[in-house]
Amino acid sequence: MSDPVPAILAHVEAGLAASLDRLFDFLRIPSISAQPDHAGDCRRAAEWACAQLAGIGFEAGLRPTAGHPIVVAHHPGKRAGASGQGPHLLYYGHYDVQPPEPLALWTSDPFAPALVDGPRGKRIVARGAVDDKGQVMTFIEALRAWHTVAGGPPTRVSVFLEGEEECGSPSLPAFLDANRAELAADLAIVCDTSMWDFATPAITTRLRGMCYVEITLKGPNRDLHSGMYGGSALNPINALARILGQLHDADGRVQVPGFYDRVTDIPPALLRQWEALGFDEGAYLRDIGLSEPAGERQRFALERLWARPTADINGIWGGYTGAGSKTVIASEASAKLSFRLVPDQDPAEVFEGLKRFVAARAPADARIEYKLFGHSPGIAMPEEAPWLGAAQTALAAEFGRAPVLMGCGGSIPVVEAMRRQIGLDSLLVGFGLDDDQIHSPNEKFELECFRRGIRANARLLASLAALPTTRATA
Amino acid sequence: MSDPVPAILAHVEAGLAASLDRLFDFLRIPSISAQPDHAGDCRRAAEWACAQLAGIGFEAGLRPTAGHPIVVAHHPGKRAGASGQGPHLLYYGHYDVQPPEPLALWTSDPFAPALVDGPRGKRIVARGAVDDKGQVMTFIEALRAWHTVAGGPPTRVSVFLEGEEECGSPSLPAFLDANRAELAADLAIVCDTSMWDFATPAITTRLRGMCYVEITLKGPNRDLHSGMYGGSALNPINALARILGQLHDADGRVQVPGFYDRVTDIPPALLRQWEALGFDEGAYLRDIGLSEPAGERQRFALERLWARPTADINGIWGGYTGAGSKTVIASEASAKLSFRLVPDQDPAEVFEGLKRFVAARAPADARIEYKLFGHSPGIAMPEEAPWLGAAQTALAAEFGRAPVLMGCGGSIPVVEAMRRQIGLDSLLVGFGLDDDQIHSPNEKFELECFRRGIRANARLLASLAALPTTRATA
Repeated sequence: MSDPVPAILAHVEAGLAASLDRLFDFLRIPSISAQPDHAGDCRRAAEWACAQLAGIGFEAGLRPTAGHPIVVAHHPGKRAGASGQGPHLLYYGHYDVQPPEPLALWTSDPFAPALVDGPRGKRIVARGAVDDKGQVMTFIEALRAWHTVAGGPPTRVSVFLEGEEECGSPSLPAFLDANRAELAADLAIVCDTSMWDFATPAITTRLRGMCYVEITLKGPNRDLHSGMYGGSALNPINALARILGQLHDADGRVQVPGFYDRVTDIPPALLRQWEALGFDEGAYLRDIGLSEPAGERQRFALERLWARPTADINGIWGGYTGAGSKTVIASEASAKLSFRLVPDQDPAEVFEGLKRFVAARAPADARIEYKLFGHSPGIAMPEEAPWLGAAQTALAAEFGRAPVLMGCGGSIPVVEAMRRQIGLDSLLVGFGLDDDQIHSPNEKFELECFRRGIRANARLLASLAALPTTRATA
Repeated sequence: MSDPVPAILAHVEAGLAASLDRLFDFLRIPSISAQPDHAGDCRRAAEWACAQLAGIGFEAGLRPTAGHPIVVAHHPGKRAGASGQGPHLLYYGHYDVQPPEPLALWTSDPFAPALVDGPRGKRIVARGAVDDKGQVMTFIEALRAWHTVAGGPPTRVSVFLEGEEECGSPSLPAFLDANRAELAADLAIVCDTSMWDFATPAITTRLRGMCYVEITLKGPNRDLHSGMYGGSALNPINALARILGQLHDADGRVQVPGFYDRVTDIPPALLRQWEALGFDEGAYLRDIGLSEPAGERQRFALERLWARPTADINGIWGGYTGAGSKTVIASEASAKLSFRLVPDQDPAEVFEGLKRFVAARAPADARIEYKLFGHSPGIAMPEEAPWLGAAQTALAAEFGRAPVLMGCGGSIPVVEAMRRQIGLDSLLVGFGLDDDQIHSPNEKFELECFRRGIRANARLLASLAALPTTRATA
């Protein structure tokens, strides 16, 4: 039969308004996985996505976990029974979103999606617009077009949507272990990354890992009057600031013992490739109101962002934080810390190193408590894999230029988990932009990125389906 | 006429239950001066106190300020027109209270006063039980007994109750300037301090001053994803922790430039007197769950608490502080800092020193904002004043032992303000105990301390009334 792609792309264009309506329905569900009182909303989001997949020929269901449910859906491919004819593709995305706070900084309700004018045309503004509901809908709408025009995807496809990506995916490892056989595909396709810029697609081949820890330092058994006790009683906020204030040295290097033991420099060739991208760190910083890079000195900007580990305090609290003044010595103080890791760093070692770092600096009377919210090592993709070539072809056809092979400073624990637990490599193709303000107020997704994302995913299905049956990662 | 004191003391005993009922009425009013939404409650507390004074023969009224109103009341003394016969006494107290947070740690509603059993008999549990509503009622009830039994106090008395003591008394200086003539008495009596212990009264002759500052460090123009920006963007929480983590050196000395320039050691004789008090710092720390003193090394415990300056972070906040994890780089971070000062230190100099300390350590891109919530120098009383002797006599008579001349680690800005602005010395006599948990959950006042406080104030009025007319401070 003739190449169905042109008809499928035409169908995508004709159905774009309907695709946008469906995305808006998805965005209206406040599926904030980190906040227990939104558990019901997370389930609603999972059920909504499940219904979408069932509606385009997938056998779809919700799988319970200790936390939020996981959506799993399967389609044998349009030639039923011929599932051996192309690689089995496993699409991954997440239906949960970050908390929207601080709400005051949003120009519209984070869960009432708005289509507003921007310098690049219309943009979709909402929490989850791009991270990750918008990206999930690029492949669901592409699968819908294949279903409508060609009766189904050109090869065997499974879809896997989790609801805890924004809070460290606590239920994911056990789920993958328990469902290894069902999820063992040839290649995972993860849609949660960015393009190089508005005109240039990208495939992400490096991801930083993560170790996220909450630390609480406890001192006096109750809050104290700073006049009656100041000068004699341990002040937990003073002590925590003193410890965390030593996280970095004057050159921006993380002082946790052993932190750099397994960190290696990237290959000179890759570094040259990145240097050739013409990244303008000045403009990148001006956009966020800054002028000087933080972090390690004497390192190239993209190297710092994609291939060097970091330590950031993501939250800190203790004592009186209301209006006016209160002369109190608090009984405890807490902070949330995240370390971005590179390949070969072991998150468990980093956590142990942090404990030693803190213990060496904590007052004798301080009691320290830790909560580990998530950890995954950084990873680098095999740049010679055939599926990578097929993906480059599909993206080049859609955008009229070759995709950039880039790194990502963020971490996607599922990519590491799928490789470690079910031996699956991941193709990371996404359509976000650096200025999408993910995790911030007024998160947005360019309408044109959404459209191009659906079209690119439609083409990608054709390119990957043409790969040999043998494990695509061979 | 015969000495009215025995009859007055008998009346105090007979009316103790009614005195307690009135204190409970006062405690039920949540007059939290630091929280704007409690402004109405502050006014209600002021009106309540005003009515009490009017009910015992005082000409009492509320005076408006830029903040919460001030209660001023006058009584000519029982021999009307004979106001020249004894010193004019100005009683000071405050009707406002600290915020009750954290509410979860209270065993009862902070504004529903409870009378509960304790190791020393009944105790009054409520926010403000001792600081300062309970202490204010010790002299109002003493004045009531004089009114009922003797027709009024034995000398001219004025009462002055402010409503902003717990938030730095911002309106006080202007008020004192505007009402200098009306408030110019011979001696101020300030009831906001503690006894040495449950059996031993005390007169406080040294107070630490205060400089309370809120600092906000601003970096990126919005919250950022720590994966996308970590390693390149300034993290305000990292920066603030780094700066505040350097507030003290390894020996506990404050590192603000010039901080100790005007600090002198106390006289050896006074230090010996304090050392002779047998203060058990081990027990004092065990009571709050600690074992090792913080603060300056190589200093005697009471010296650190009463005669050495300190720096404490009273509150800190920034980034994500909710449940679970959020990988964000916040756009700003804030902290509330208080410095306890000793005589001769200049709060304005300390504030300027803090600004230099921060500027020298802040990243180039950081924008720093300050709020100054209050400042007053530390002070020391003239220990040879005749009113001091009279007070010692009255307290010794009530408690059967001589009062301790002690220092106080806290600050009472009004004492410094009355001396500087209206040339008035203050007699600091109070009936709190170190374990009253002021500014903490479950603040309490021992019923026996309340009773003894009323009786001691009744006696004190007689002793001070017997002083020569000439300025008692001469």
